[in-house]
Amino acid sequence: MSSEQYWNNYLSTLCSCPEIDCFLQYQHAGISATDLAKQRPLLTKALVEMTQLERGLIANPDEQRMVGHYWLRASSLAPTPQITRQIDQTLHAIHQFATQILQGKLTGSQGLPFTDLLMIGIGGSALGPQFLAQALQQPTSMVIHFLDNTDPDGIDQTLAHLETRLSSTLVIVISKSGGTAETRNSMLETQHFFRAHQLDFSRQAVAITGVGSKLDQLAKTERWLSTFPMWDWVGGRTSIMSAVGLLPAALLNIDINDFLAGAKSMDQLTRSQSIEHNPAALLAAIWYILGKGHGDRDMVILPYKDRLALFSKYLQQLIMESLGKRYDLDGHVVNQGIVVYGNKGSTDQHAYVQQLRDGLDNFFVTFIEVLEDRQGASIKVDGQHTTGDYLFGFHRGTQAALRESQRPSLTITVSDISPKSVGALIALYERAVGLYASMININAYHQPGVEAGKKAAGAVLDLKNEILTMLAQDQQPFTIEQIAIRLKHSKKALIYEILRHLAANNAVHLQGSWHDPEHLQVKAKT
Amino acid sequence: MSSEQYWNNYLSTLCSCPEIDCFLQYQHAGISATDLAKQRPLLTKALVEMTQLERGLIANPDEQRMVGHYWLRASSLAPTPQITRQIDQTLHAIHQFATQILQGKLTGSQGLPFTDLLMIGIGGSALGPQFLAQALQQPTSMVIHFLDNTDPDGIDQTLAHLETRLSSTLVIVISKSGGTAETRNSMLETQHFFRAHQLDFSRQAVAITGVGSKLDQLAKTERWLSTFPMWDWVGGRTSIMSAVGLLPAALLNIDINDFLAGAKSMDQLTRSQSIEHNPAALLAAIWYILGKGHGDRDMVILPYKDRLALFSKYLQQLIMESLGKRYDLDGHVVNQGIVVYGNKGSTDQHAYVQQLRDGLDNFFVTFIEVLEDRQGASIKVDGQHTTGDYLFGFHRGTQAALRESQRPSLTITVSDISPKSVGALIALYERAVGLYASMININAYHQPGVEAGKKAAGAVLDLKNEILTMLAQDQQPFTIEQIAIRLKHSKKALIYEILRHLAANNAVHLQGSWHDPEHLQVKAKT
Repeated sequence: MSSEQYWNNYLSTLCSCPEIDCFLQYQHAGISATDLAKQRPLLTKALVEMTQLERGLIANPDEQRMVGHYWLRASSLAPTPQITRQIDQTLHAIHQFATQILQGKLTGSQGLPFTDLLMIGIGGSALGPQFLAQALQQPTSMVIHFLDNTDPDGIDQTLAHLETRLSSTLVIVISKSGGTAETRNSMLETQHFFRAHQLDFSRQAVAITGVGSKLDQLAKTERWLSTFPMWDWVGGRTSIMSAVGLLPAALLNIDINDFLAGAKSMDQLTRSQSIEHNPAALLAAIWYILGKGHGDRDMVILPYKDRLALFSKYLQQLIMESLGKRYDLDGHVVNQGIVVYGNKGSTDQHAYVQQLRDGLDNFFVTFIEVLEDRQGASIKVDGQHTTGDYLFGFHRGTQAALRESQRPSLTITVSDISPKSVGALIALYERAVGLYASMININAYHQPGVEAGKKAAGAVLDLKNEILTMLAQDQQPFTIEQIAIRLKHSKKALIYEILRHLAANNAVHLQGSWHDPEHLQVKAKT
Repeated sequence: MSSEQYWNNYLSTLCSCPEIDCFLQYQHAGISATDLAKQRPLLTKALVEMTQLERGLIANPDEQRMVGHYWLRASSLAPTPQITRQIDQTLHAIHQFATQILQGKLTGSQGLPFTDLLMIGIGGSALGPQFLAQALQQPTSMVIHFLDNTDPDGIDQTLAHLETRLSSTLVIVISKSGGTAETRNSMLETQHFFRAHQLDFSRQAVAITGVGSKLDQLAKTERWLSTFPMWDWVGGRTSIMSAVGLLPAALLNIDINDFLAGAKSMDQLTRSQSIEHNPAALLAAIWYILGKGHGDRDMVILPYKDRLALFSKYLQQLIMESLGKRYDLDGHVVNQGIVVYGNKGSTDQHAYVQQLRDGLDNFFVTFIEVLEDRQGASIKVDGQHTTGDYLFGFHRGTQAALRESQRPSLTITVSDISPKSVGALIALYERAVGLYASMININAYHQPGVEAGKKAAGAVLDLKNEILTMLAQDQQPFTIEQIAIRLKHSKKALIYEILRHLAANNAVHLQGSWHDPEHLQVKAKT
């Protein structure tokens, strides 16, 4: 390719979006204009289905639900005036509540302004706020903490850290159903911690949950500070522009109007039927071509910006939970999905980029570039170079090294990190995921595979109770064999593992060694 | 399979290690005894090569280096008395230095005890200390911070956070060669920040670097607080038991003797020629069988413990940088590697586990279980259940759900999170990586693919300088075309991207829009 051809090819693979000051460059994705043209029929179908989804058609047939996260940033597009009103009122309520907190009109138990924000939630209810806080937090705002698991030691660590500021810690509990076990457990541990410190939890707590859920009822009965709604037409992994993301963002002094506006602009842009000018359609097509419509290549997300380090984790959830499906919409087994991983550049160049350049050819890289290096001036660290020049150079250098190895990559460029650009980035990927799901004919909006694990967990906990009850009734040592016979339970391996866990936590008394399963005995703690 | 057969199968796939109180369970990896037996010849070769490596043979032929990270926890095994002495003396010096800091005998600029620790390093020089701090930090210790990139905004954020405590911040700069650009840049920015706050950087700085390196010379000339050595026989990704990991750990009050002892015990155990009793050999064999010796399955690391959330990232570097190689030791192109990703359970059950259960069948899961839930007693959150019971149940539930979908998994169990068990876990994986590398006949100890990116980055920075020099000499607007002609440079796309970055950071004056590359003009800033 002559240098003139190369330049023309560069220009024709540059999707430039002045409306929101961003770019998608895919010259090095190894995709020809012909490849792209071939995707037109599938993409056209996908764009039509997206229009129907946005109009309120049941786009999640499995759960008989509408899919409405696009309305959250353009409430007038919602299919009923009632939904429009719900969105507007909630946004208004978030602004009001955040203002009261930030102006110190609503205070903690001892009348002091809130200093810390403890978020209790898991999945979309944690990742969205975590990503937003990392990307947009200002040094002067409240300090944010998360309980996003049911790990006792993890809970202890976070609460110990808050101990001296507990009376000025605002707690936000997030669960759509109100019944998510990890979230409920963390909430109960936190309430216990508040009681142990003679503090009234309900005076410092807020719930974000479905109207009428158990959590909603609890919050209203106990008169928590406030409650905000979650709706069944917003999925957890796309809830970042509902109260789930907006409330903590507003409390961290992030401009949520700008955040919504950025997403809205991206939505407008990505409704375009002109694929070459629609970055979401292009992304979906690129994923399809590179992975042969079946995720044959992992997606490596490499933002060259510390503030975006969690974006890959956020996208890992958004993409893998949306696309990782057993059945297509016609009921055929398809085992779809795309693996997503990554952290940040140039840091990752000193980790796994060795493999990307030299090893398995099973991925494509999405670089994310931010043009503005920092607020304020830079010192020179080497001749005329700034640290930001190096960051720029390392991105281009790694891109060139991958190209040399024929490893595909593309680059998304935004001019800065701001509520607007972050809103736009999220909206870009939300739509790309929706379009790609249409292309491969799957439901991107349910998660049927998650139930099996929960169910199996319930059976494990039941068996644990049975064992404890039996031991308590009959205060003598039992072998695993004897327990299995007594309980008429065939799973000796599971009994062994339960006993090992109970013994490690002083819930049973162990005789012998857990390294000798066939001879160990347990009895009840006296 | 009858329940009795199942139990016997469970016992025969349980590698139980009383010496360090850990287990490897691989019943659900889908591997038969015959599969394992077939690996015996390759594993025997691997174990012999490991013995030679430990004795000081050149195990990194490409760089003509010995590979000595195993000596760090058993200095008497080092091949020369000089190396033994270096290891012992360094360990002694780390203890001494840390004691002086922790007892307040060495203080910050204003005579106050150090409150914060700022680590400047990238790759192994960041990931090791990050992982150790997260896994083992106590609430009472110094607060640790990292500069692990060359992102100006990221540097600003971290330094702003430290501003009020800068005079009591101890800075540790880590670079083996002393020339790693990201590390050098972050150091220069930090020194500038100290100067701007009228503080003497050298009175609060420590270097960990190769003896005689540029960084070593700088530290000695400027009389920094101390320097600690890095050796060419320890690679960055296995440097966690050199001063790189031990010094920050000791400063965080982590028992580094226990940490080393845990690794040493694991080393002893994993030298065993009896594969069934050698968890590292088993791991290597399992990787080989599941990935068909070519990384056909991604490795998903799922620790059910918040403190281990960074372990997957640590292993991502250790494994992908070690195994992701183009050539085997005979010079054949093999494009090897294994993809590693993961965060923590049960959190990830609400993210990508949907895909693991229902989607692409291209991975195996390694669960990591910790038997001890927490220090101290637990409240009941639901009947007889504790939060720890739920964590246990969710692990077993997800394991069962994956089994149901015929997705392979294995479980590593440790009794607690302590310096000893964390040391053992690291040593387990270090050896498994070494053995697997022998099985696939590659050099696990170099990283030749990293150079290409650095070189290309240098060319980008040079072109940037040429452009700036040209614009400064001739104060008139230039189009991209004109710059390309003037500089006799064919890469107009790169010129455009450099200009865009310069314009975004006020280094050139832009006329027109960067969304219209063919018409934009730039001139020097006046």
